[in-house]
Amino acid sequence: MRQDYIQRTYNPKNTDLVAEYFIEAAKGFTLPEVANAVAGESSIDTWTDIKTLNPALAKRLKPHVFYIQGNIVKIAYNHELFEPGSVAQILSSIAGNILSMKMVKNIKLLDFHLPKLFVSSFLGPLFGIEGIRKVLKVPKRPLIGTIVKPKTGLTPKEHATVAYNSWLGGLDLVKDDENLTNQGFNPFKERVKQTLRARDIVEKATKERKAYMANITAGTTEEMIKRAEYVKSLGGRYVMVDIITSGWTALQSLRIANKKLKLILHGHRCMHSAITRNEKHGISMLAIAKLTRLVGFDQLHTGTIIGKMEGKRREILDIDYEMEHQNVEENNINRVLRQKWYDLKSLMPVASGGIQPCMIPELYANFGNDIIMQFGGGVHAHPDGTLAGASAAREALTATLKKIPLKEHAKNHPELMAALKKWG
Amino acid sequence: MRQDYIQRTYNPKNTDLVAEYFIEAAKGFTLPEVANAVAGESSIDTWTDIKTLNPALAKRLKPHVFYIQGNIVKIAYNHELFEPGSVAQILSSIAGNILSMKMVKNIKLLDFHLPKLFVSSFLGPLFGIEGIRKVLKVPKRPLIGTIVKPKTGLTPKEHATVAYNSWLGGLDLVKDDENLTNQGFNPFKERVKQTLRARDIVEKATKERKAYMANITAGTTEEMIKRAEYVKSLGGRYVMVDIITSGWTALQSLRIANKKLKLILHGHRCMHSAITRNEKHGISMLAIAKLTRLVGFDQLHTGTIIGKMEGKRREILDIDYEMEHQNVEENNINRVLRQKWYDLKSLMPVASGGIQPCMIPELYANFGNDIIMQFGGGVHAHPDGTLAGASAAREALTATLKKIPLKEHAKNHPELMAALKKWG
Repeated sequence: MRQDYIQRTYNPKNTDLVAEYFIEAAKGFTLPEVANAVAGESSIDTWTDIKTLNPALAKRLKPHVFYIQGNIVKIAYNHELFEPGSVAQILSSIAGNILSMKMVKNIKLLDFHLPKLFVSSFLGPLFGIEGIRKVLKVPKRPLIGTIVKPKTGLTPKEHATVAYNSWLGGLDLVKDDENLTNQGFNPFKERVKQTLRARDIVEKATKERKAYMANITAGTTEEMIKRAEYVKSLGGRYVMVDIITSGWTALQSLRIANKKLKLILHGHRCMHSAITRNEKHGISMLAIAKLTRLVGFDQLHTGTIIGKMEGKRREILDIDYEMEHQNVEENNINRVLRQKWYDLKSLMPVASGGIQPCMIPELYANFGNDIIMQFGGGVHAHPDGTLAGASAAREALTATLKKIPLKEHAKNHPELMAALKKWG
Repeated sequence: MRQDYIQRTYNPKNTDLVAEYFIEAAKGFTLPEVANAVAGESSIDTWTDIKTLNPALAKRLKPHVFYIQGNIVKIAYNHELFEPGSVAQILSSIAGNILSMKMVKNIKLLDFHLPKLFVSSFLGPLFGIEGIRKVLKVPKRPLIGTIVKPKTGLTPKEHATVAYNSWLGGLDLVKDDENLTNQGFNPFKERVKQTLRARDIVEKATKERKAYMANITAGTTEEMIKRAEYVKSLGGRYVMVDIITSGWTALQSLRIANKKLKLILHGHRCMHSAITRNEKHGISMLAIAKLTRLVGFDQLHTGTIIGKMEGKRREILDIDYEMEHQNVEENNINRVLRQKWYDLKSLMPVASGGIQPCMIPELYANFGNDIIMQFGGGVHAHPDGTLAGASAAREALTATLKKIPLKEHAKNHPELMAALKKWG
């Protein structure tokens, strides 16, 4: 006989960690049976009764399944089950073996609520939205940027030229693509050197702050941090990491190194869809975003709603809200748990993937000011090239902020007109 | 117009990296259209034509979709697109954004073939199966072990006592559970100290080598490596890491630190099912296992076939074969690509999760000698406790190796008899 962890009258303590799951039972099992087994497997139990349980500790540490409605199950865990400051250990518990159990047909971690002790055991973002705005001297409007395209295949010099034109045309940010790290045709150091040199020139010319997000994703933690140090040594203000393919333990190390480096950390989420895309199984993007804020990245891709990558409107807006606020209320319709962030700074959402300048009014309507809009092909596929594409984006943003229709604004801005002809 | 990357007559070069996908097109797209877009997005292209492409480089680096059969697509990539020695960069390319594309309904990376240059850019296992056998002085038979149960909730002293009884009863290996790292009720250092002390006592008593796999999973790479150093300083021979929740970049750092530490690295795969379980979307366990061998773990959980965790027989056997051999042939029925391992050592498969001693004949029939059988509840839920449970497992193994039916062997071995009564 397994223990019985179901206690619908249980009221989670302020110190409990609460996890919310979507669960479908495998054939032959009821949902309460499976919820009970999941609660045990994710905490103190195994598939059969064991002789080694210390009854006092077992009583203190036992999980409580306190909510079962439809396919939604909420489990409260004693905080002692978790190691403060370790994303890996939290995931190994609440999103580990339980995803493999034969008793579950599908299971997805939808959200988790962390008590103060745990939130405060992480560093959180060093800059947050406010800090990023101070660095870039852009107090209110959305930030606009581009990914250097093609994704791979440019030399450092060509790369720096694309960046130069992007900034000069009016963009704030230029970033490497997720699969460009340190390849022979475009070595990391040479690329960073040339691109930051281009940045300095454009900053002088435009009197605007410009930033380059160099992709420091690397094989080892040490190499990743070395690349960040190199960026810093050349006056860079930003680095970017492919957070999912690199993994949480390396990210937490980078965040500690960043106490000294003081770089803005940009998180690219490529491969997240291996985990998040299935609606019934895996881990939600909301959970990934919360972990990213805990670790202490400053920016994170969360979706565009309207671009080339999958992502539902309501879910993306809930994620962005969670990243930007200090107090999140429970929402049983959207499956969001309450969460206080105890002064951990905010995490800037990034919309990236298949968007172009003519979408700016819609992006702004969806996301407001606190968003980074990143255009890749949407800049470099402009009929007149990158400079014109960047200019079209900046003008589209200016028009949008002034509530002028793009078509009207375009009359005096040929780059925007050309963009409208192609994409409008 | 996108580029056309489909070239069915293309014969992959020896230096190409080949990826094999299951792909379902989203509504409105054909499979070749989607395969073409996937090839571009994972290499040099984006969603629209761009002005920044360097024609010579684009020609050299362009991907080739050379196989489309049913839902299976194979793409050959120029090796220059990848950074040697970086798991993160490879995944960001061949299992990154493409999993998020709206054009794909489902996509799963089934396997990848790495050319020599890339295989040789990784360290691979330090010990491999042969090396593990030398350390443990067990030249041929399966290794048997247990996970200390309950998963969490024991004090260091209780933990060490469970380990002591497990070894004394006849098991080779004792390991921590995946969610036990460094909690207040069982701090890492005290646990390791007491458990290794128990190991020393049992080794003297039994004249057998015994090993403790301490879970060094931690919040940061540095802390993980510190924990490994601590284990080494007390004479430990093994450490264990939750590889998926920790992440590849930290694992590669650990492997480098392990050049000096020379510990056997045990990989627990909890959370892999977030990525691997969906048959149509994500990344296969075969691909995860290959990456684990490249990084250089010595042991990896791959499934039991018959225990509490999901996993199909044929797939598990294919994974184990890949981990153990130097040359793997292409198998278009099982969806396995050819792979040479260029002298990288083998990776020992571990069967763990809901198995008990009476399953040993079946486990042996399935896996042969090169397997670690890990019993958790199957040892500690024995009616007479851990010592008896461990003894039952060892006797069941002895009987199996001698081809004696368990029921017959049990006549003179009451612990096995009791196990058979409960589970047989």
